[in-house]
Amino acid sequence: MANPEFDIKRPTMIGDTADISLQKTIQILRSEGINPTVVMEFSPSNPGTLCGLNEVKTLLEKILPESGSEAWAVEEGNSIQAGEVALRVKSPYASIGLYETAITGILSSSTGWASAAKECVNEAEGTPIYSTGAKNVHPNVSATMDYASIIGGCLSCSTILGARMSGVTPITIMSHSLSLIMGDTVRALQSFDKHTPQDIPRIALVDTHRDEAEEALATARALKDRLRGILIDTSSERGGVTVNLVKEVRARLDLAGFQHVDISISGGLTPAKIKNFIESKSPIQSFGVGSYIASANSNPFTGDIHEIDGRPIAKRGRIPGVTINNRLHRII
Amino acid sequence: MANPEFDIKRPTMIGDTADISLQKTIQILRSEGINPTVVMEFSPSNPGTLCGLNEVKTLLEKILPESGSEAWAVEEGNSIQAGEVALRVKSPYASIGLYETAITGILSSSTGWASAAKECVNEAEGTPIYSTGAKNVHPNVSATMDYASIIGGCLSCSTILGARMSGVTPITIMSHSLSLIMGDTVRALQSFDKHTPQDIPRIALVDTHRDEAEEALATARALKDRLRGILIDTSSERGGVTVNLVKEVRARLDLAGFQHVDISISGGLTPAKIKNFIESKSPIQSFGVGSYIASANSNPFTGDIHEIDGRPIAKRGRIPGVTINNRLHRII
Amino acid sequence: MANPEFDIKRPTMIGDTADISLQKTIQILRSEGINPTVVMEFSPSNPGTLCGLNEVKTLLEKILPESGSEAWAVEEGNSIQAGEVALRVKSPYASIGLYETAITGILSSSTGWASAAKECVNEAEGTPIYSTGAKNVHPNVSATMDYASIIGGCLSCSTILGARMSGVTPITIMSHSLSLIMGDTVRALQSFDKHTPQDIPRIALVDTHRDEAEEALATARALKDRLRGILIDTSSERGGVTVNLVKEVRARLDLAGFQHVDISISGGLTPAKIKNFIESKSPIQSFGVGSYIASANSNPFTGDIHEIDGRPIAKRGRIPGVTINNRLHRII
Amino acid sequence: MANPEFDIKRPTMIGDTADISLQKTIQILRSEGINPTVVMEFSPSNPGTLCGLNEVKTLLEKILPESGSEAWAVEEGNSIQAGEVALRVKSPYASIGLYETAITGILSSSTGWASAAKECVNEAEGTPIYSTGAKNVHPNVSATMDYASIIGGCLSCSTILGARMSGVTPITIMSHSLSLIMGDTVRALQSFDKHTPQDIPRIALVDTHRDEAEEALATARALKDRLRGILIDTSSERGGVTVNLVKEVRARLDLAGFQHVDISISGGLTPAKIKNFIESKSPIQSFGVGSYIASANSNPFTGDIHEIDGRPIAKRGRIPGVTINNRLHRII
Amino acid sequence: MANPEFDIKRPTMIGDTADISLQKTIQILRSEGINPTVVMEFSPSNPGTLCGLNEVKTLLEKILPESGSEAWAVEEGNSIQAGEVALRVKSPYASIGLYETAITGILSSSTGWASAAKECVNEAEGTPIYSTGAKNVHPNVSATMDYASIIGGCLSCSTILGARMSGVTPITIMSHSLSLIMGDTVRALQSFDKHTPQDIPRIALVDTHRDEAEEALATARALKDRLRGILIDTSSERGGVTVNLVKEVRARLDLAGFQHVDISISGGLTPAKIKNFIESKSPIQSFGVGSYIASANSNPFTGDIHEIDGRPIAKRGRIPGVTINNRLHRII
Amino acid sequence: MANPEFDIKRPTMIGDTADISLQKTIQILRSEGINPTVVMEFSPSNPGTLCGLNEVKTLLEKILPESGSEAWAVEEGNSIQAGEVALRVKSPYASIGLYETAITGILSSSTGWASAAKECVNEAEGTPIYSTGAKNVHPNVSATMDYASIIGGCLSCSTILGARMSGVTPITIMSHSLSLIMGDTVRALQSFDKHTPQDIPRIALVDTHRDEAEEALATARALKDRLRGILIDTSSERGGVTVNLVKEVRARLDLAGFQHVDISISGGLTPAKIKNFIESKSPIQSFGVGSYIASANSNPFTGDIHEIDGRPIAKRGRIPGVTINNRLHRII
Repeated sequence: MANPEFDIKRPTMIGDTADISLQKTIQILRSEGINPTVVMEFSPSNPGTLCGLNEVKTLLEKILPESGSEAWAVEEGNSIQAGEVALRVKSPYASIGLYETAITGILSSSTGWASAAKECVNEAEGTPIYSTGAKNVHPNVSATMDYASIIGGCLSCSTILGARMSGVTPITIMSHSLSLIMGDTVRALQSFDKHTPQDIPRIALVDTHRDEAEEALATARALKDRLRGILIDTSSERGGVTVNLVKEVRARLDLAGFQHVDISISGGLTPAKIKNFIESKSPIQSFGVGSYIASANSNPFTGDIHEIDGRPIAKRGRIPGVTINNRLHRII
Repeated sequence: MANPEFDIKRPTMIGDTADISLQKTIQILRSEGINPTVVMEFSPSNPGTLCGLNEVKTLLEKILPESGSEAWAVEEGNSIQAGEVALRVKSPYASIGLYETAITGILSSSTGWASAAKECVNEAEGTPIYSTGAKNVHPNVSATMDYASIIGGCLSCSTILGARMSGVTPITIMSHSLSLIMGDTVRALQSFDKHTPQDIPRIALVDTHRDEAEEALATARALKDRLRGILIDTSSERGGVTVNLVKEVRARLDLAGFQHVDISISGGLTPAKIKNFIESKSPIQSFGVGSYIASANSNPFTGDIHEIDGRPIAKRGRIPGVTINNRLHRII
Repeated sequence: MANPEFDIKRPTMIGDTADISLQKTIQILRSEGINPTVVMEFSPSNPGTLCGLNEVKTLLEKILPESGSEAWAVEEGNSIQAGEVALRVKSPYASIGLYETAITGILSSSTGWASAAKECVNEAEGTPIYSTGAKNVHPNVSATMDYASIIGGCLSCSTILGARMSGVTPITIMSHSLSLIMGDTVRALQSFDKHTPQDIPRIALVDTHRDEAEEALATARALKDRLRGILIDTSSERGGVTVNLVKEVRARLDLAGFQHVDISISGGLTPAKIKNFIESKSPIQSFGVGSYIASANSNPFTGDIHEIDGRPIAKRGRIPGVTINNRLHRII
Repeated sequence: MANPEFDIKRPTMIGDTADISLQKTIQILRSEGINPTVVMEFSPSNPGTLCGLNEVKTLLEKILPESGSEAWAVEEGNSIQAGEVALRVKSPYASIGLYETAITGILSSSTGWASAAKECVNEAEGTPIYSTGAKNVHPNVSATMDYASIIGGCLSCSTILGARMSGVTPITIMSHSLSLIMGDTVRALQSFDKHTPQDIPRIALVDTHRDEAEEALATARALKDRLRGILIDTSSERGGVTVNLVKEVRARLDLAGFQHVDISISGGLTPAKIKNFIESKSPIQSFGVGSYIASANSNPFTGDIHEIDGRPIAKRGRIPGVTINNRLHRII
Repeated sequence: MANPEFDIKRPTMIGDTADISLQKTIQILRSEGINPTVVMEFSPSNPGTLCGLNEVKTLLEKILPESGSEAWAVEEGNSIQAGEVALRVKSPYASIGLYETAITGILSSSTGWASAAKECVNEAEGTPIYSTGAKNVHPNVSATMDYASIIGGCLSCSTILGARMSGVTPITIMSHSLSLIMGDTVRALQSFDKHTPQDIPRIALVDTHRDEAEEALATARALKDRLRGILIDTSSERGGVTVNLVKEVRARLDLAGFQHVDISISGGLTPAKIKNFIESKSPIQSFGVGSYIASANSNPFTGDIHEIDGRPIAKRGRIPGVTINNRLHRII
Repeated sequence: MANPEFDIKRPTMIGDTADISLQKTIQILRSEGINPTVVMEFSPSNPGTLCGLNEVKTLLEKILPESGSEAWAVEEGNSIQAGEVALRVKSPYASIGLYETAITGILSSSTGWASAAKECVNEAEGTPIYSTGAKNVHPNVSATMDYASIIGGCLSCSTILGARMSGVTPITIMSHSLSLIMGDTVRALQSFDKHTPQDIPRIALVDTHRDEAEEALATARALKDRLRGILIDTSSERGGVTVNLVKEVRARLDLAGFQHVDISISGGLTPAKIKNFIESKSPIQSFGVGSYIASANSNPFTGDIHEIDGRPIAKRGRIPGVTINNRLHRII
């Protein structure tokens, strides 16, 4: 994963998204003339796939003073245990205190999304997964969600910004809208074919107007060898995509000589459903996963002070002093 | 709710967060010279408390052409059924097509958060709830999450930006950090008292160093009548906050003559836990709810074309033509 | 229900289907010169809708001696409790002993089928149900099964023999085979129309070749006012028949001006599924139920001697003497 | 299993038990002068033990034209998967079409019964099982049910006709009626002994009048070495037959010197109960199973056309063309 | 309940059954010359029927000094809530400290037994219950257990000592041993009849040698009008006592003219089983309950100091000061 | 386990705790001049750890006549199956009959307690367990309960009498009462230290007044090397003792240099909770278990006659004659 470019706002603006109690703390300490060097540790509440550290690193580079600050972290994309220290920051409190909310927020959201993606990837046993959940999250974070999906193992995503941030090429498919406006799937596909560069694969969406098998055959007959694949996204009102439907469409395509046409599916996929498709040996070349990743619960991170000016300390319920974790490596 | 100010980015930038298949659709239709007037309807997958419509309205005002466009919606904060039409937009496709992802994304996220807040508010039977979940969402959307919590019935929130967007005053409490750095809860509270304007209530956090009942009594003895309340946020490692703990602290405060001191609690609260506190008549004056709201699943919205140039239409599985819903009112 | 004609085989042949232990009993008693008058009572193991009594009555009329024999029974089609006496026969043992197996067999099977039909009828709340289960039972009993379905409340059935036995007109629909052999649903329907008397309603089966909504519209356009209805029997591989599918087909038919076309559904229907269609107010004019009725468990009946030559008697576990049941009326 | 003789009615009469839609199909095709050669495939909905094929073969031999017809099948008594092709028939449609209902009906019922028998046989681990369910099915199919039980692994059955069809000797036991009419179990057994050929084993039913252990001892004392075994069939009102009861009766028989007397049990036996008797090492020499087999759900078979005049075809949801199954062998 | 006589051992000996930590406490306070007046409160962990207070009162009368001691309690046999104060003692600590273990022990055990008895009594809806559990508790406490059963609502019990302590007449029945040694139930009953005073009712135990119905009839024929009732205590190996068995025995007794003979049952009875007999209107005149009461969990009581020399106090987790409970009345 | 001294009351007094039906039996047999030699066998209803045999042996030695009596038993503390013969007594009936209730009572109670203790010991995997349940049983049996706990594997107990009966040293800890009366945990511990012999270990109870970690550190600072350990018994109102609390207290003690201080815990411990502490590698040196052992259900034993004057016999449901059990050894 080379060189993601995060859209980090100005630090002062991020400060406004902090808990006001932290702003109050900074203000009181300043009035009292107190600014000790603290060690803060950040840990998740649940196990998962760690994500958001690269974005946090970009933030820390802007806010920490050059001398006297250090940071260690577990690597982006690694699995992490509940309560394990994922990030340790040592810095004067006045520099880090206000950003505790932003740091836990970034890690909580991104780790939640990446973990959900990873669950899907694990069940797919090598069949590629694409993230298509942008339509289910706020546009302010849709690219971040797509980036986290890719950290969690997805091959690509459906937004340009998310793909750019992750250094991949976004996936391009016909939309239901194009098909509806053109009035006919074959005509829509032919327009798509006419106006799209040769290096972008042609994938037909085959559940808009007619029976899936009919539309699959019709689009294959229209584009012949230029058709790379079809996408079945049957609505739940029509029973959704089932193992038997996929096998039948595959059989009817093969019977008509279109063995070269790939089949992708999407629509309410979850790890359990993916597992079922894989176990029943469904002839599927890729899965598109949307709401399962996008609607995933965030994984709450907490930040705790464990050392003040070199003295081990902790609030009740936490163990005082720096916590040993061999998987941490110096990042700043 | 007067005059929320949404941080709507430039429309073209939001376009980059759209699914690339929609960008492709716009591009093909433009090449073909086709731009029909469409009616799009947006509906949630699950029942809940509708939120995000005000932000979507701000977006639509920027992107829709003045003539020939219309929009109707159910009112912000109302409850909504699964599959019910929450928003209907009529516009040339070229103007609206690219923003389908942004619209469903805003509605999905905000409705998810507002619904979770509403569940808590319903169980609290009138006891105020504060949103403290900023630490569990990405800072790009923390203010939006706080706004949705307030639409769902919370009285206020913990971030300045969220409070400003919602037109309320944020809640100000002592932080665990202040207490740890000062080395003693009473000393931390005295500093807070010295450096904070008179009109902000003094609320002591009493679980940092010692037994909650001890710290409650110590802070009450230190500030006397100036102490408005205490907040108990006992960590799960120490058994969390229980009904019996709250009753005992109340009894020990009363025995010592501090009947005027309010008790607030927070820490992993859910609707079920709030219900339990209310049913067992715990003497609590407010609840702080964080991760339950912030980590709530988003409620996936879908956008569907139901009319093209006046003709009823729909993809398979949806019913063609405009859907009747008397709760819709004209917003544009 | 006037005048059902049961296909009762010759009594001696039915004897061969008796348990050999009963044949042995008759033979021993004859050798010993013993033939007391006994009272036998027949009761079901489970509650249900009593069926088979008319057939049993036909049998008893052939086997019981004219003088000294009596029989009482609960009425055909009434509900019956577990353990309740449904039939009481008083007769010389030599005349009735051999037919105990046939009597319990008839009552067990028919009561099982009628009870399953009744469960469906109860959930349908007045919408007609047709029995289509002949394909799931042995042809030797398919007419008996159809008769039991009608006793349980079905309006008609799919076999000629079953309909004749029950005094109703069988239902006539296009078959999947006709559609497949004709190669096209519309063409098959037109043949059906051409070769069928005017008084038989035209009902099109619309799930053979294409999308159900497409075929519904095509057949309606072909026959216009002469089309009485359509039958949707979507296979489980395609998600089966769902509430949303029915509503969508109804909407598309209405939109095209075919409000007069009825909708029937079939395919794996159970009481729970029927209940779901009714509760969600699906626009359905009739249900076809097959395997649920045909595969129903039989309801085991037992026959017990309770009196011998006027003396109360019973085997261990049963109460000696004639059992009081006011619902019994004299049938012989 | 040599040479079963099935009671196949005249084909035209079986035709009357067909679905009327199939009769209509034949009539229309005849009117149109169409009679293609079709391939029909028959498959069960659930896994089980295949039964009924021999009876279907007898039927096919009567109805298929000599030239141009073929049939393949999995062997009678083999286990079969859900959806696996159990029978494939190739024939002019006019010859086979009307008998689809009869064929699926025979296979559905018989496979249901044989599968239930097999479940019991599997749990009995070699201890013989007898089918005693004739009293729970319609006499028109009781012999067929007994035949299916034997295909499923039962050693014999209780009806003369079922035993004759299967080529086995039926089991002969004393009936409760004999015992009640004689007024005493010992007296009934002595009559049985006097009037029964020497080669039929003497088995006493010991639960009619007194405690099972008492009657077992009394009958053993009466017949001594001529008593082959006892049958315990305690009613559920008296707690049914339990492991402890069997062990106690065995112990009391042994203590009195009757080690040669076998113990059989019956009464509401299911695979789970048989398993329990076997696992607790109950001293049982045979089980009688009635209602579990007789009341078994039928296993619905469907018949589908997969080829018409050599062209692969299928209705939606099924895969066109002949299905490969290496277990099929040519039967016609 | 007049005048129970408890077998209170010498206080010093009870002291030896105290927790040694309490003995140590007394010894240290004596060495330090400290002996404050304390208020101790005793509460159960679970809701139930309070029992043991009369025994505790007898103990307190022996150990408390005459001046300066007081005690209040909820009344013996009343229902009590979890955590409710059942007993409050005010006394110099040196007098009461050592007996805390004995007091909680008496209340825990007796309340456990009485609560279990009460559950049975509640389900029996007026039909008498007898305590027969002495065989399942240590003989040192069997009389105490019987006393607690009667406080919980039982009409009498099976031990002489328990009956004497409770002021009732014990129930006298034939034993299985008598029947086995006499070799025959009728002979055993006749001996019982010969050697027992006229005012003790004759109740025959009818499940020892033969079928319950047979023995019931045989004993009724032997004693005629002198037989007051029968007791059915069928072992679980023979299916236990069931509703149907009771109804059948009743019917056979009535048929033979023995309407005057009562039926009692026992053997593994629980509240759920008693409820079942009552709901199915079984003709039963009394129940014998043994192991359900005798094996009941004890209900742990805790004793806590709430006041020391007039100052409210409590350990962490308990509320300081005397707890208000209007149901307490002065007992010392 | 050498030489336990049981507090067996006078046999005639134990007789008064017998079921009156047994007294009646003895009286009738005496009147009839019958006194056969019987073999009685005693078996538990549930599996468990056998206890009470030593006490029963002491009883038998007092009541059995010297000539003609024998007894065999499974060894005290061994595990026993449901229904397995644990004790067999051969004796004239007049000598043993009256004591059947006492024998089953002793075995039922003691086996219940020992089995519960064993469950805890099994989960603790070598970490010692102390029985602290005396406060939950009647003082008449508290020593017997402590003895049974030690037979079940506990290392010691909290009562002097129980410890003496078992030949162990009781465990001595500070009480909550001492701490409350002294007004401060450290002061209470210093008194304990001053007045207690050097060879008794000092164990501080640290949950009375303040936070457990605070009190642990305070007591360790006060007694330094003389402090052997601390006991945490946090009330359920404060969340009880949790794995995290134990780990935190351990960490804070170690940080302050008190590695030598052991940690014990108690308070509502069950086998499941002990398993959880062990599996999460909590740093615990011993467990105190009270109500789980003390409130355990007794395990009902039954006594049955299997031989009378050498003849095998048994009531219905039991197998006549002496039961083979190789684990029995002669005890008298």
